[in-house]
Order: sequence, then C-alpha cells, then structure tokens
Amino acid sequence: MIGIGVVGYGYWGPNLVRNFAEAPGAKLVCVCDASPDRLAEARRRYPSVRTAEHYNELLGDPSVDAVAIATPVSTHFDLAIAALRADKHVLVEKPLASNSEQASELIAEAARRNRVLMVDHTFVYTGAVRKIEELVARGELGDIYYYDSVRVNLGLFQHDVNVIWDLAVHDLSIMDFILPGKPAAVSATGISNIPGQPENVAYITLFFPDNKIAHLHVNWLAPVKVRRTLIGGSERMIVYDDLEPSEKVKIYDKGVTLSAGEEVYELLVSYRSGDMRAPKLDQAEGLQTEARHFIDCIVNGRKPQTDGSSGLRVVRILEAAEASMIDRGKLVELAPFKA
Amino acid sequence: MIGIGVVGYGYWGPNLVRNFAEAPGAKLVCVCDASPDRLAEARRRYPSVRTAEHYNELLGDPSVDAVAIATPVSTHFDLAIAALRADKHVLVEKPLASNSEQASELIAEAARRNRVLMVDHTFVYTGAVRKIEELVARGELGDIYYYDSVRVNLGLFQHDVNVIWDLAVHDLSIMDFILPGKPAAVSATGISNIPGQPENVAYITLFFPDNKIAHLHVNWLAPVKVRRTLIGGSERMIVYDDLEPSEKVKIYDKGVTLSAGEEVYELLVSYRSGDMRAPKLDQAEGLQTEARHFIDCIVNGRKPQTDGSSGLRVVRILEAAEASMIDRGKLVELAPFKA
Amino acid sequence: MIGIGVVGYGYWGPNLVRNFAEAPGAKLVCVCDASPDRLAEARRRYPSVRTAEHYNELLGDPSVDAVAIATPVSTHFDLAIAALRADKHVLVEKPLASNSEQASELIAEAARRNRVLMVDHTFVYTGAVRKIEELVARGELGDIYYYDSVRVNLGLFQHDVNVIWDLAVHDLSIMDFILPGKPAAVSATGISNIPGQPENVAYITLFFPDNKIAHLHVNWLAPVKVRRTLIGGSERMIVYDDLEPSEKVKIYDKGVTLSAGEEVYELLVSYRSGDMRAPKLDQAEGLQTEARHFIDCIVNGRKPQTDGSSGLRVVRILEAAEASMIDRGKLVELAPFKA
Amino acid sequence: MIGIGVVGYGYWGPNLVRNFAEAPGAKLVCVCDASPDRLAEARRRYPSVRTAEHYNELLGDPSVDAVAIATPVSTHFDLAIAALRADKHVLVEKPLASNSEQASELIAEAARRNRVLMVDHTFVYTGAVRKIEELVARGELGDIYYYDSVRVNLGLFQHDVNVIWDLAVHDLSIMDFILPGKPAAVSATGISNIPGQPENVAYITLFFPDNKIAHLHVNWLAPVKVRRTLIGGSERMIVYDDLEPSEKVKIYDKGVTLSAGEEVYELLVSYRSGDMRAPKLDQAEGLQTEARHFIDCIVNGRKPQTDGSSGLRVVRILEAAEASMIDRGKLVELAPFKA
Repeated sequence: MIGIGVVGYGYWGPNLVRNFAEAPGAKLVCVCDASPDRLAEARRRYPSVRTAEHYNELLGDPSVDAVAIATPVSTHFDLAIAALRADKHVLVEKPLASNSEQASELIAEAARRNRVLMVDHTFVYTGAVRKIEELVARGELGDIYYYDSVRVNLGLFQHDVNVIWDLAVHDLSIMDFILPGKPAAVSATGISNIPGQPENVAYITLFFPDNKIAHLHVNWLAPVKVRRTLIGGSERMIVYDDLEPSEKVKIYDKGVTLSAGEEVYELLVSYRSGDMRAPKLDQAEGLQTEARHFIDCIVNGRKPQTDGSSGLRVVRILEAAEASMIDRGKLVELAPFKA
Repeated sequence: MIGIGVVGYGYWGPNLVRNFAEAPGAKLVCVCDASPDRLAEARRRYPSVRTAEHYNELLGDPSVDAVAIATPVSTHFDLAIAALRADKHVLVEKPLASNSEQASELIAEAARRNRVLMVDHTFVYTGAVRKIEELVARGELGDIYYYDSVRVNLGLFQHDVNVIWDLAVHDLSIMDFILPGKPAAVSATGISNIPGQPENVAYITLFFPDNKIAHLHVNWLAPVKVRRTLIGGSERMIVYDDLEPSEKVKIYDKGVTLSAGEEVYELLVSYRSGDMRAPKLDQAEGLQTEARHFIDCIVNGRKPQTDGSSGLRVVRILEAAEASMIDRGKLVELAPFKA
Repeated sequence: MIGIGVVGYGYWGPNLVRNFAEAPGAKLVCVCDASPDRLAEARRRYPSVRTAEHYNELLGDPSVDAVAIATPVSTHFDLAIAALRADKHVLVEKPLASNSEQASELIAEAARRNRVLMVDHTFVYTGAVRKIEELVARGELGDIYYYDSVRVNLGLFQHDVNVIWDLAVHDLSIMDFILPGKPAAVSATGISNIPGQPENVAYITLFFPDNKIAHLHVNWLAPVKVRRTLIGGSERMIVYDDLEPSEKVKIYDKGVTLSAGEEVYELLVSYRSGDMRAPKLDQAEGLQTEARHFIDCIVNGRKPQTDGSSGLRVVRILEAAEASMIDRGKLVELAPFKA
Repeated sequence: MIGIGVVGYGYWGPNLVRNFAEAPGAKLVCVCDASPDRLAEARRRYPSVRTAEHYNELLGDPSVDAVAIATPVSTHFDLAIAALRADKHVLVEKPLASNSEQASELIAEAARRNRVLMVDHTFVYTGAVRKIEELVARGELGDIYYYDSVRVNLGLFQHDVNVIWDLAVHDLSIMDFILPGKPAAVSATGISNIPGQPENVAYITLFFPDNKIAHLHVNWLAPVKVRRTLIGGSERMIVYDDLEPSEKVKIYDKGVTLSAGEEVYELLVSYRSGDMRAPKLDQAEGLQTEARHFIDCIVNGRKPQTDGSSGLRVVRILEAAEASMIDRGKLVELAPFKA
C-alpha cells in the first residue's frame, strides 16, 4: 500500500483526497492544511485520517510514501522540492511550478532520487481526451490543420495568477498529450478589465513547425460557460464539447478535397461532408484514472503520462504566452522541446 | 422613383435584385453580368428587367440613377469609381475596396459629385445588431470590457481574398456600428492549410485606447457553423448568436462588483448574477431595411449609416490585420480614425 | 412534357408552383385562384404562366395534363373529383380529403380512369424521413418499440380544421411510410383553449397489433417550436429533430439487453449504450423530389409512394382520432387496413 | 435538535442522510438497512452514525424523533405506519404509498398522534419549481391553458412499479404544487416492451374542470434524457427545462390576442410575441430546502408544503392513470379532491 499525504484542502484538495481514499493500492494517511477549520472538515469526512497544520509533520511521517500538492501555484515549488528531498513521490496540481527554472529543478531532483514526479493535468485522464488522442494517433484526422479551444465562464478571480495560468494550462496540457509535434512560437494578447487585478481575458496563438496553428481563448468574465475545442484535419474534424452530458466528442467526416484543375498549376478545392459520429466514452472521473495511474507508476516504476517534462513544457509555453501578452502579441520563439 | 442597376448576378447579386425589386420608391431597371447564363436567369425571374453584358451599357442608361455592385472584391473600385463618374449613386458590397487608398478615392469622388456612397455592411441593418447598438448606446452594458466573435464554418474558399477579407469584414462592420471608440492597434495570426490557397483561418485582436479589447475568430475549415459574439460590460453582458432562430440576442445581468476591502488599497471582486432577457427583435431581412435606407439617403440627401467612411475604417483595419498576420502577430498601430 | 395546373396560390401553392416550374419533364401551364391579387402575384413571378379565376378554365385547358391542389381541406374532394373526371392526373395537398368516404371515392375514380392520384405527404420525400425508412427497413432498429413525435409551435389557427387535421397529418403520413404494420386502435385527447375555435392542442395514442405504440403531440399554442420524433427499437433508437440544420437524424446504439437470471423464470434487464451516429442526408427539398416523382409516375405509369391509399389510411386515422378526442380518450378501433 | 433516523441506504437514502447530516437543528442518529454492506458504507462516510439492520432497533431508539423512509414503494406503508405508531414524525419518499387507502390511513394516523407526515416530493423544493409557482400564483401567465411535461431517458427498470409510479409521480407532485384547481378525470395509455416487465412508456392526459388540460409523457427506454415542461397561459408561457444548467425557467411573452371581427359573432385570433426572460433561480439543492422544511414543521408545528394530503392526491391520480392505461385510454373520473 502506498501511503498518501495531501497538502491543501481548499477547492481542489478534497477531490484528490476523495480519489486517493478510494484508489486500490493507496492508503490516505494524512491531510495537511494551514487552516484548522479545513482540517476539521477533512476529519469529519475521513475520520480515520491524520491531519497536520504543519507540512513538516506530513513530510516527517514515514508512512507517507507520496505527497499530492493542491495549494496556490506560488507554493508548488517549495512544497514539491521539500517532498522530493524527503524522498517522497510527488503529484503536483497544475501548473507544475511558477516558472520553468523551478520546473526543471523539480525534474532533476526527482531523477536524482528516483522518485515519481507527476503533474495533475486532469483532463489528460478523461475518457474524452483519451479518445481524441487515440483518434489522432491512429491518423483518423489526417494531417492536423488547427486546434482551437474556448474555455470561458464567469470564473473566480485568482489573485496570484492571471487567466492564462489558471485556464489555458488545461488546454496546453491537453494539446501536449494529443498533438504530434510541439509549438515553435507563440503570440498572445489579453487585458485586465478590473483595475489592480490580473488579466482576465487572453488569446494565445501557437505556431507549429509543420504549418499547424493552435489558438486558445480564455476568459474569467464571460456571461456563459463554454468549453469547446475544434480540431481540424485533412480527413476528419472533431468538436469536443466538455459541457455535453454524454456526447462530448463528435467526429465529422468533413474536409476539403484537392484535385488538379485543367491547368497544371491549378488546384481545385472542393468540400466533402459525410456522417458524424459520437463515440462511446469511458465515463470514469478523470481524477480517478489519474490517481490509479500515479499509484501504478510508483509501484511499477513507470513513467507518468503527465510527467515532470510535460509539466515543464506547459510551463514554458505559459511563460512565453505571458511575455507575448505583455508585449501585445509580439512573437516569442520557443526553444526546441526535447522529445 | 430611383432607377437601380445591379452589376454582378452571382451569389449575392440576386439578393440585391430581389430587395430592390420590392423596395418602395425604387425601380429595378437593369442587371449586368458578364455571363449570358446569369442574365438569362435574371430575365427568367424578372422578365421586365433589362440585362446588359457590358457595364458601359448600364452606366450609359439615363434611367439608372444608382448602381449596386456585387462583384469580386478586386473589381469594386473600378466599377464604383466609374459609376460615380457617371454621376450614379453607389452601393458597394463589402468590403468597400481592396485597399484604403481606393476607399478614400471613392469617398472623395462621391463628395465631389454629391452622390451617395454606401457600403453593403448588411448585418448593420438586422434587428439583432440594431438592438445591440441601442442597448450599448443607452449604457445598459456599462463600460464595455471586450467584444469577442466567432464566425466559422465549412465555407467556400475565395480565390481572390483570404478569410479575413471574406468573413472578418462582417464583424468589423458590426463593431464599427456598435462600439463607442475605434481601435488603435491590431495583432493578428492565421495560416493557410491548403497549399497555394489564401489563409483559411485567422485570429484578430484589436486594442482600443480605453482598455477594451476585441477579438475575431474566422475560419473557412470548421466542422460546424458558429456565429457567436460575446460582449462583456461592467453592468451587463450580451451573447449574440445569429444561428438562433428567434432569440438571437440574450442580455445577462451578470458581472463583477468591486468593493473596498479592509485595507485601503485592497479591492474585493465579487460576482453578480441575475436574470437573462432575450428582447423581441425586428424580424425584417437586413437587406430589405438596407435597400430602403439607400433609397431614402438618395431621395432625402441623408448620410448612410454605413457610408464610405465606415467602409474605409473597416478596410483600414483589414489591411492592418493582414499585415500583422503576415508578420505573425506583430502589433500594427492604426492611425487615428476621424470622427 | 406534362402540363401542370395549380389551383390555390395562397400559403402552400407558391411552393408547388416553384417546384413544378423547375421540374424536368414538367411545364407549368396555369395557376388558378379566386383572388385576382394572388393571380397578379403569380404572373409577376412567372410572367409566361396563364392564370385563371375559375377552376373550369383550368380544367378545360387541354394542355393541362395534371392538377395540383393547394386549397382549404374542405374543398379538396370537389376539386380533385372534378379534375379526375376531366381526365387529369391529380396531386392533392394533405390531407387527401375531409373524410374517408371522399378519399375512397377519389381512389375509385382515379382507378376507373387510370389516372395518377397522389397526396402531398411532403415529409415522405425528405432526406431525413427516407433515411429513417431505410434504417427501419434494413432492420437496424430491431423490433420497433414505440414512435413518439412532438410537433408544436405558435401556429396559425386554421378555421376549417383543428390541430389534428393540420399538424398530426404530417406525423401520420411519416409513420405510414416508415413503420411496418398499421395501427389497430386509437385513443386521443385534446381541447380548444380559445372559445369558438377548433381544438388547438391534442394528444393521440395509436395501438399496433404487435405490442408497439405510437404517440403524437400537436399544439398550435406552444411558446417554442419543436419538431422531434423518438423511435425506440430493441437494437437501436433514433432521434429525428427536423429543426437541426444538418444532423436531423441521430442513431443511438442504445437499448436493453435481456438475459436469463439465476432462476429459470427470471429475466434480467440491463442497458447497452454505444456510439451515436448522424448519417449524411440528402439535402434536396422534399417538394422537389416529390414533384419529380409525380411526373415520373405519370410518365412511366408508376404507383406513387404516397398514393390515394396512403392518403385514405391517414384520413381514416384522423377521423378515428377526432372521434376519440371528442369522447375524451375513448378507444376507437380501426378496421384492418388493406395491404 | 431533532434526531433523525433514515431507513433505506440504497439509491436515494444517501441523499437524505447527507442533507439531514448538514441540516441545522437536525442530528443524524441512525441509518437502517437490511444490507450489512450498505451499513458499512454508511459508517465509512458518517463514522459517528449508529447503524441498524432491523427497523425495530431504529424505532426503539428514543433519540430518534423522526424517520425518513427511502425504501421500495411497496414497503412505504408498513414502515411509515410503524414509525407513526412509535410516535415518530415521518418523511416518506415519493410516492407516499402503494394505494390511496394506505395513504389515507397514514394521514389519519399522523393526525391522531399529532405527528408531522411529509412526502418527499423533491422537485417542489427546487428553485425552478418554486419560481414557477410564484409566477402562476401572481397571475403572470393569465389563465392556464395547458401543462405538458416530458420526462424520459434510458432509466433503470423498477421491478415493483411501472414507469408511471416511478416518473409521473414527479410531474404530478409539481402540478399539485403549481396549478390552481385539481384534475377531474384522467385518460392514460402505455405499454411494456419487455416481456414480463412493468410498463416502460406511458402517456397521461388530465382533464381539469375549467377547460385546462395536462399531459405527461414518461419513458424508461428513450435514447436521450429529456426533462421539459411547457405551460401555456393566456398571457405568458413557460418552458421549464430541468437539464439546462442555469436558465431552467424561461418565460415567453407570447400568446393569442382575441378581438371582435366585423361580424358580431366573429372572433379574430392574432398572435403576440414579445421578450423572453429567464429569471434568476435559487440554486440550493431541493433536498436541502426540503430537509430544513421538515425540521421546521416538526419544531414549529407547521403543515408541510408536501403533506400527507398532497401525497394522497398524487397517489389517487396514479391509481386512476394506471386503471385507465390498463383499459387503453378509458376515461377514469376522479372524485373531487378536498381543498
């Protein structure tokens, strides 16, 4: 049994606790939070769990084999590095860290100590995203033309990060999992409409080496909730609407057919439109699959599907997007990502 | 009665012809097209109309008081300037011209000859857009925070223009009508997925002097048709979905409330969420209202709501967006627009 | 060429005229309407067409081979029987006649004179309904369990018929085309909410011999337009939503699996849920397909897919439903339908 | 503090337990279920709760003031009458009992012992239904014309009751709360598609004395989930869609305007169509409001909004509907309901 300690019992922590409490092979050992009220709440729901106000208590507990971190972004690095140094395996809520140096250091420390470092890119573990990855990998879409996502709603203002670090991180982690190839440059725009607050609306374009484009639209001040991604390919196209209760992924047999025109240099573009199909999806909660995968990686020494490197790639793009946004769309090149 | 000649009887021309044939005060006199087949089709539907294969026939006809131009963009300027020089009033399909020099020259020529020059920004004449303009003008939205539109579908590739000049022109013309203030700079991105074809997907960010942002997403290669605009304001927010059969405009009593926190420098952000309302809209076809407005401007010497200047403003933004897109998001400043 | 005369140029007549004007092998010869204004409108659109205020003019015209009738229901019989007696082929708007005696008489007269008698059950000629028929005929749904349709909106009150004769006729004609087997009994309810007006809301249940049920809900006083049919089968289920712009027919791989329980008499019911598929549909206007089919039946002596017998079957069910509705749901048995 | 015992910890019981565990003024004392596994699950979540395999243990516990019953319908009466006889207050899951005799006896027993008897008509306590009740009571809809609900999905087959007793009970309880006046007669149809199973699809028409009609459509074998109610009135109409995430209730300013025609006996019907409005709704879980109301009724001696009488009225209609369904739509008159 892998003993799990969870630090942070605020908005997201209870979901981690619940899933680890039920994951086969895991034992929820300790919950840590600076707030006694939150700890009381944790004990009310999980009477047998130990609670700790101080992180060192959790780290010092030898029955804790792995630590799951669900605290504000600015604390991710300090908590994660301390856990690794205490020889714990670590799962960190997204984004992995506040900047790429920190992310790299976590990767290095985990490698040095041979610990599992995993980032909580939750959507990667949902049935919808895994189905899309499978379709793309099988080549069903043909060449990918574009990836376009909208993730907007009337959301909580975060005070320590802007909307890019809060919402775009989801789409970047999905893209990191789904798309072949990594982006080479980014151009982003966005503003803060509320004086003194971080940017609440942003638009990010990613350029890929192979004539592919991705675009993310994130907004905390939208009147309606939208979670919709379009993926265009030469053979098929996908609409992924995460708010649909069951048919979240629709595959359209639509596209363009190219043929030679009368003149040798001429290219005729015609449209193709066929059936639409919504495949059956695994209905399991993403976090459940993720918790089990984390345990499996620890027990069997596997590399997580959302390992430190994927966390670092996402953080590097977030940094570049923020830099571009501050400079109103200026192109920021991304150094090549390691395979 | 104002005698109307229409040049171009392809995709859009028949709509102009139909609406002028039925507009009070107008008389459809002549239809001009280079294709005899198209002219035969026009005669089949409007047996009393004269048809002309050559534009000069139309211009030389003294019973033609005004010319409506529905031809490819690249021909707009030549046809319009010739019509003005023949002392005709002119209505030009969007965009007004291929570049801002041409647009300026048309404005100057129309002024010199005291002719009406109007651009066919059709959406400006729809019940939905007019209702939104009314709401914004009355201050119901409070300060405008952002304008975000998506206009995508599996659309026809145009060979002489890219998707910006084909689709974004609609959103720019709506914004020109609705929003107080004009944009000061633009950053755009986009690519062509089909070798040898113009860009089929583009994203345009417009920066306004007063901390307001606008963003347009246009795409000819999308699996589904979307026509949705979000307008965020400090008091209310609008969702305008042009594909809704009747409730195209929804007004959300949602937003952010700011209050002073305990510390003097602290600002608390809280959310407000109230009723939603979908106002009754004028159901008349936009082009019908537009045709009547054109006649009214000619007869009563009024300035069109979509006059040459609005056509020029839109063309200037299109030029800037295209320049930015070619330079992958590079900020292009816009010289101030005249009031 | 088959010469076509159309009687009635009100709401539906112009659609018939337009489609016959464009149908290969047909020639639109004459339009008849009691209103000179309507005839002037017809001449404006079809300048070469003859117009007649009196039906006898149309019947007396030897170049009229076939008559299409688009007049109030109460006049269908008189106009159709006169046309048949004048040796014309006849297409009658739905429903075929005001009662089953009239419908039978029309069938007999057409048989006697060897003329084509067809009823304008338009939906039968749409891509959506034809696709459903094909799926059912191929057995893709397995055993049909139920057919449930909703056809409601804020519709025009008809003064000569109630909502059953106006709206349910569509669903009955679709069912007549799609379903194997004919209903054996009917129970209907409904009321008029507006004093002095015919019933504006009605519910009709049809019982089939083979443990299948159908239900229609029709309403002229609904706040929203709904055109949705559910068809349940043992293997698959269909949702047909005629208001969807393109994906009108969705096939759900859902159903119930029966298996023997531990005890011999025990039956276990479990659920099956798989992919959903929206097949590509023929986009042609139903009435276009229908007009061509009518011409084809005349020229090649074929039996129409919506012949007099199908018109009679629908009228018999309408009569039974109305009788049941007046008696508040009382079961009305239907005499067996001939094959 | 009111001590609460819950009997039945299957599908619905955990919801009752959770809400009573959190209701101010209530103390969750005991959970009773015949299955030791279910009790273990209850203890896991609520470690301080007592569990009982035998109902008598629960009834014998003097710290239990009130019993909430969430067991199969066929057991409701025995469990409830025993609880009342043990001088407990009682909340019974819907429907109150298997027949009206039982329901009447429960009412009588509760009155005799001065105990609160409440039925768990959950929807009555949701923000959506309470808002509709308020609108109807204020006369905003004018005269009610009809009430039409659809409640279908691929649902679990219940073995002890058919789809009417499982699903229609919800709509009947909502109608009992919302509508002025009670139904006078019922006509219902329905069948079982699965041999040996109870009816899985049913249609129920209710006739009201004042020219108003209600209709319920319930189905356990539908490919999609629908929860939609239309309420037509002379002034306004409502669409209540319980699957909408936030705008569940939409009020349409639509209807019919009657005016005298030229002839004294003539009535002209014209349509009115105005704004649509979706009012803000109380977002609290219905069961939370309901649990607090139950406690309040016990503590302050109030009559529940869903008291035994409303439970009885609903059961009487269910009985009549079932009788009519068996007789294929035969009208079943309902004896007058007491005020």
